[in-house]
Amino acid sequence: MTVVDLNADLGEGFGVWRLGDDEAMLDIITSANMACGFHAGDPALLLRTCRAAAERGVRIGAQVSYRDLAGFGRRFLDISPDELTADVIYQIGALQAIAQVAGTSVTYVKPHGALYNTIVNHRDQARAVAEAVHAVDPGLPVLGLSVSAFFREAAELGLQTVPEAFADRAYRPDGQLVSRGQRNALLHDTAEIAERVSSMVNRGRVDAVDGSTIVVRVESVCVHGDSPGAVQIATAVRDRLTADGVEIRPFT
Amino acid sequence: MTVVDLNADLGEGFGVWRLGDDEAMLDIITSANMACGFHAGDPALLLRTCRAAAERGVRIGAQVSYRDLAGFGRRFLDISPDELTADVIYQIGALQAIAQVAGTSVTYVKPHGALYNTIVNHRDQARAVAEAVHAVDPGLPVLGLSVSAFFREAAELGLQTVPEAFADRAYRPDGQLVSRGQRNALLHDTAEIAERVSSMVNRGRVDAVDGSTIVVRVESVCVHGDSPGAVQIATAVRDRLTADGVEIRPFT
Amino acid sequence: MTVVDLNADLGEGFGVWRLGDDEAMLDIITSANMACGFHAGDPALLLRTCRAAAERGVRIGAQVSYRDLAGFGRRFLDISPDELTADVIYQIGALQAIAQVAGTSVTYVKPHGALYNTIVNHRDQARAVAEAVHAVDPGLPVLGLSVSAFFREAAELGLQTVPEAFADRAYRPDGQLVSRGQRNALLHDTAEIAERVSSMVNRGRVDAVDGSTIVVRVESVCVHGDSPGAVQIATAVRDRLTADGVEIRPFT
Amino acid sequence: MTVVDLNADLGEGFGVWRLGDDEAMLDIITSANMACGFHAGDPALLLRTCRAAAERGVRIGAQVSYRDLAGFGRRFLDISPDELTADVIYQIGALQAIAQVAGTSVTYVKPHGALYNTIVNHRDQARAVAEAVHAVDPGLPVLGLSVSAFFREAAELGLQTVPEAFADRAYRPDGQLVSRGQRNALLHDTAEIAERVSSMVNRGRVDAVDGSTIVVRVESVCVHGDSPGAVQIATAVRDRLTADGVEIRPFT
Repeated sequence: MTVVDLNADLGEGFGVWRLGDDEAMLDIITSANMACGFHAGDPALLLRTCRAAAERGVRIGAQVSYRDLAGFGRRFLDISPDELTADVIYQIGALQAIAQVAGTSVTYVKPHGALYNTIVNHRDQARAVAEAVHAVDPGLPVLGLSVSAFFREAAELGLQTVPEAFADRAYRPDGQLVSRGQRNALLHDTAEIAERVSSMVNRGRVDAVDGSTIVVRVESVCVHGDSPGAVQIATAVRDRLTADGVEIRPFT
Repeated sequence: MTVVDLNADLGEGFGVWRLGDDEAMLDIITSANMACGFHAGDPALLLRTCRAAAERGVRIGAQVSYRDLAGFGRRFLDISPDELTADVIYQIGALQAIAQVAGTSVTYVKPHGALYNTIVNHRDQARAVAEAVHAVDPGLPVLGLSVSAFFREAAELGLQTVPEAFADRAYRPDGQLVSRGQRNALLHDTAEIAERVSSMVNRGRVDAVDGSTIVVRVESVCVHGDSPGAVQIATAVRDRLTADGVEIRPFT
Repeated sequence: MTVVDLNADLGEGFGVWRLGDDEAMLDIITSANMACGFHAGDPALLLRTCRAAAERGVRIGAQVSYRDLAGFGRRFLDISPDELTADVIYQIGALQAIAQVAGTSVTYVKPHGALYNTIVNHRDQARAVAEAVHAVDPGLPVLGLSVSAFFREAAELGLQTVPEAFADRAYRPDGQLVSRGQRNALLHDTAEIAERVSSMVNRGRVDAVDGSTIVVRVESVCVHGDSPGAVQIATAVRDRLTADGVEIRPFT
Repeated sequence: MTVVDLNADLGEGFGVWRLGDDEAMLDIITSANMACGFHAGDPALLLRTCRAAAERGVRIGAQVSYRDLAGFGRRFLDISPDELTADVIYQIGALQAIAQVAGTSVTYVKPHGALYNTIVNHRDQARAVAEAVHAVDPGLPVLGLSVSAFFREAAELGLQTVPEAFADRAYRPDGQLVSRGQRNALLHDTAEIAERVSSMVNRGRVDAVDGSTIVVRVESVCVHGDSPGAVQIATAVRDRLTADGVEIRPFT
């Protein structure tokens, strides 16, 4: 039987501000990429959200980021590898304590935003993040894009790599994501998104923006929680996979 | 044989900025109260400083603070207990990961600055900090003022409380510190400071500002690292205690 | 003919986060209390919001705050008067440049959140804020509570004081607001709110929480933009005043 | 008679932290590039430093930066032009109010750190900064590198451009600075630095790292205030220029 994990970004508010419907998403997903305070996520919000995840048996991952509240971690920062490694260790540790107090634990790491995109190709930063994860706990898997410098560096250190597919993002022929700045980077049609996810999970294939069909390895599917209609799209993805006979459960 | 611990605040720079001579202090003290990023302490600095402490066998404590870089955590913040608890958990966790990667660990918690002073009397915040420590690890001792709401709350939760004396601070007759804002709050004369510490450690007594002699319980002595002549004063304190036949080692 | 100003807090998002419906509020109010970056308000958002205000002829005020993004400026900070004065000058200046580029200008100052509440009674901080406003421009009016240390200090420096009433807040018999932490601090019934505002503006009277009727001086009415139903309540207040024959226009 | 301006970075502390000897530098330079809070410079420090500059008749410039306290503005940030423009407007305005209260004014703008280096070649960010300066006040000159996208964009908008030379930095054959990360980027020998500055100011020539002699346009010389021996080097530069018969005064 085919199995797949569903992940989404949570805890992305700060202070009075909120982003997305965390409660609703927790009823859909199996893995919660929890902000760690550098792009979002004040400690009180993180503690509440980790508790809500623990209650539902949803697993927690550390979504580490550049230190950039004003830019939500979506802007490349030319940080040195040493500083980046330390920043990532700090964030994972902070969330570990929060998660533990909430009765759960951090079971994987997934970089956020511009850091995620940068380490697809930026070898020094990719290495810095992989080394941080390895230093904290060599048993922590990392979530990311299958074809990436990050996965090469992580694998070299012996970390488990969990390739994910994006439900609502367009792919380039080389398997990387079309940049958010470009037209057609995001998909909005619920039926089309469900169909693509079904193809990626069941057949390991998806159409790239140039019309070619590419191969994708998928152990987890990322659904976004902060776009309009996010909950509806995530529900449709889950329903379609269930109808396909796919078991939705945390990756192992 | 009398034994006592010597503690000081370390890792109190941020980015390009430095405060105090951490390297020199690490050769004098037995316990380092490490900043956790909320009043000072960027992760890369903390990692380097924890490594330097580990090399010398100096123990690490988490010096948790209000979130206030601009005020160095020296300004009272009327934060709710829930938020404070979460902020403290976050800081301890962040430092735990940093310390672990540096080959050491966080073995106690000591509040910083205005938070330290506030929870001498502010019961709700005292409880919030004690609960945070207890939630992260009920085996973590707390350093603080012997006569304080913080110690009462910590003891009630079953935390080990380690009373400390301040080498260069004036005492009120009730055993609390004279506020920094007041005249004579700080002592500057090295010989006088060494003499007072000797009296506190060996006889459990110190003269308060009104001339009365008060009883103090001392398991650790706090020497400051950021004032002019700090290293010289700390050295004098250590030398005097050694000459007294006191063994300087981490509290147990 | 009775005239009154309608003010609300705007620009209270930060980065990706938003709070309230600024566009809708701009069609209702005559004065916009614009965040200045210390409790909310990144520069790009402020520039856009100031431009939107300028297009509609809505006046801009600087809503200065403690430096506290995590707490949205709603937590008392025991900052020294010198630091507070400098912080307020900095914020006003930042918004002045933003407003000028947007084709408008800062025409008054209104403290935000905990700072607003604190300087009702805290004379040193009240003086510090008044001195900041006076130093930047002695012609800048201040908005605040009629009975307050802030207004006494401001008046002493020769600043124009513009007393405001709160549409949806309960009053104590002494004319101060019931603290947000208490039950019944906020009113939610639209009809009741409109009726109270009508009474305050037309008769200078409102019922306090103890049932007594108190006298209030009102040149501006504050409607909140971030509570549920905020736009509807603000519209009801405006409609009621218009029906009463009150002219709604900026204070002079 | 040859005239030249001497500029240095000031106000680069934050909270308890300090960088460089601002008081000493104010006795040497004619133009102070004042931090604006985004890479350094809390408002109280800026107010004190502006007052000290005003007392000595030293002119104030706004040293605008990426928002990056942890990196001291020395890390490239891939910020959008719209956000950058707004950030620069905000910073200039904040410093304008501080300077005005201190009895002086902001008379030029000089980008800081990574922003300075980036807009030598990054046209979109260069344009964004130039537009911000122009929007605040088209009469504000900008300080920068003679051969730069920033100066081209600034000139196109009609801004006055003031080319500066760096006393202690090595030059590439194309007139750009050798990157700080490279060996030999910084000069340390006081006599050599004084000699180079003398050559740049009097003959418009300096030796690049490849041994070639390049032409430099110099209306201001930047001396650094935060390196070891900074005050001594700045004094030597000033003494040498004075001995050369050069008049040191603010650019016009």
